[in-house]
Amino acid sequence: MELLFQHRSIRQYKAEPIAEKLLRQIIKAGTRASNSGNMQLYSVIVTRDAEKKAKLAPLHFNQPMVIQAPVLLTICADINLFNKWCEQREAGAGYNNLLWLMNATIDASLFAQNISVEAESHGLGICYLGTALYNAKEFIEALELPKGVVPITAIVLGYPAQNPPLTDRLPLEAVMHDETYADFSKDQVDQLFAEKESLASSKQFVAENQKENLAQVFTDVRYKKQDNEFFSAKLLETLREQGFQL
Amino acid sequence: MELLFQHRSIRQYKAEPIAEKLLRQIIKAGTRASNSGNMQLYSVIVTRDAEKKAKLAPLHFNQPMVIQAPVLLTICADINLFNKWCEQREAGAGYNNLLWLMNATIDASLFAQNISVEAESHGLGICYLGTALYNAKEFIEALELPKGVVPITAIVLGYPAQNPPLTDRLPLEAVMHDETYADFSKDQVDQLFAEKESLASSKQFVAENQKENLAQVFTDVRYKKQDNEFFSAKLLETLREQGFQL
Repeated sequence: MELLFQHRSIRQYKAEPIAEKLLRQIIKAGTRASNSGNMQLYSVIVTRDAEKKAKLAPLHFNQPMVIQAPVLLTICADINLFNKWCEQREAGAGYNNLLWLMNATIDASLFAQNISVEAESHGLGICYLGTALYNAKEFIEALELPKGVVPITAIVLGYPAQNPPLTDRLPLEAVMHDETYADFSKDQVDQLFAEKESLASSKQFVAENQKENLAQVFTDVRYKKQDNEFFSAKLLETLREQGFQL
Repeated sequence: MELLFQHRSIRQYKAEPIAEKLLRQIIKAGTRASNSGNMQLYSVIVTRDAEKKAKLAPLHFNQPMVIQAPVLLTICADINLFNKWCEQREAGAGYNNLLWLMNATIDASLFAQNISVEAESHGLGICYLGTALYNAKEFIEALELPKGVVPITAIVLGYPAQNPPLTDRLPLEAVMHDETYADFSKDQVDQLFAEKESLASSKQFVAENQKENLAQVFTDVRYKKQDNEFFSAKLLETLREQGFQL
């Protein structure tokens, strides 16, 4: 489908708002995605208020599109409503564990991707923000998320004010395996990353950050081991505070 | 987009195979989904071999479409290739932690949903199988997944031999919150689940299982607390065996 092959993340938006009816349709399209047991263990918080966006922006490390885009969606793994229903029906729910955190995270992600595809089919642009997981604790406070609810990703939505080129992808062989996983030889790894490493943008990253190669830009600049471990520990604490037994 | 609103899980398939070129295009559409840092921390194992399917079927609790559908895709969170690349470039990777397990799981899910949407746009039917997470350990063995690779979901694909009705969804208010999370009163919970509880299929579930209500069918029959806890412990062990520090 041309729409899927033309997807690119949009980071500059027009001021034009999104009509309420359209936004509801987009989120409804999200709910049509498959989900475990049809339990719908996800939710979305819609942020349009300028003050609220200003409050959330620092939690998204001040990525400018949080302020600029008319709509910010915080997508959550959510066992709260289902738990409440079970409780009212005297049914002993047991979903605050790793298995159902993972199930709810996957279901929330399918919900998010349907939202993205539907939005783009109406001429809107989108950009995912991975920062929701980094600062889950602070989003929970700012958005008043009850126990059982954890933000897993966020999406900004709006009419695009840019038309960026498609980003690169590794050759299909990097992700597709036939019958069993064919692990990679050193030569294969070199070959699979050759095109990515040779891109002008990659060379610029390496030069700007004074690194030896692109991999080191990832490990020493963008996503450092010590940061990853810090945010993992913070996330684990937050998940436990939200009632998950991990 | 009509396609998204018409999605239903297909559980009966024709024998007709899927052309190799089409399958590659479908998986390529998966790779066009957004992903964290464009690191592509996911992979897919394609199962078409009848013997292999017969071996995997019990791990999917013998759901008949595993055998019947021409293609089974096992979708993985995968830091193996990226780690190997970092190692060869003398870059100190630090992705075997909770944060990146979650990032990779979300990215693998967006990849999976694009695969589903693309497949349906070509007239194919799909069905997700949540069993991948339940028996991750056994899938790792059967599919020869190296450290850093964990199956998070699976999808069967094929030409549909049935046209089931759309399944129900809760009212949009159950999952959509404006600015902050509006937690639910008892009355609201009753209202949100009223339609679902009144469906003939729900009443049949309750009667067949001799339960008092639908919630108890979920908690006492379909997804029991003790099973969830058993599979959570098993999953945690498997994740650790695959190299994640959790």
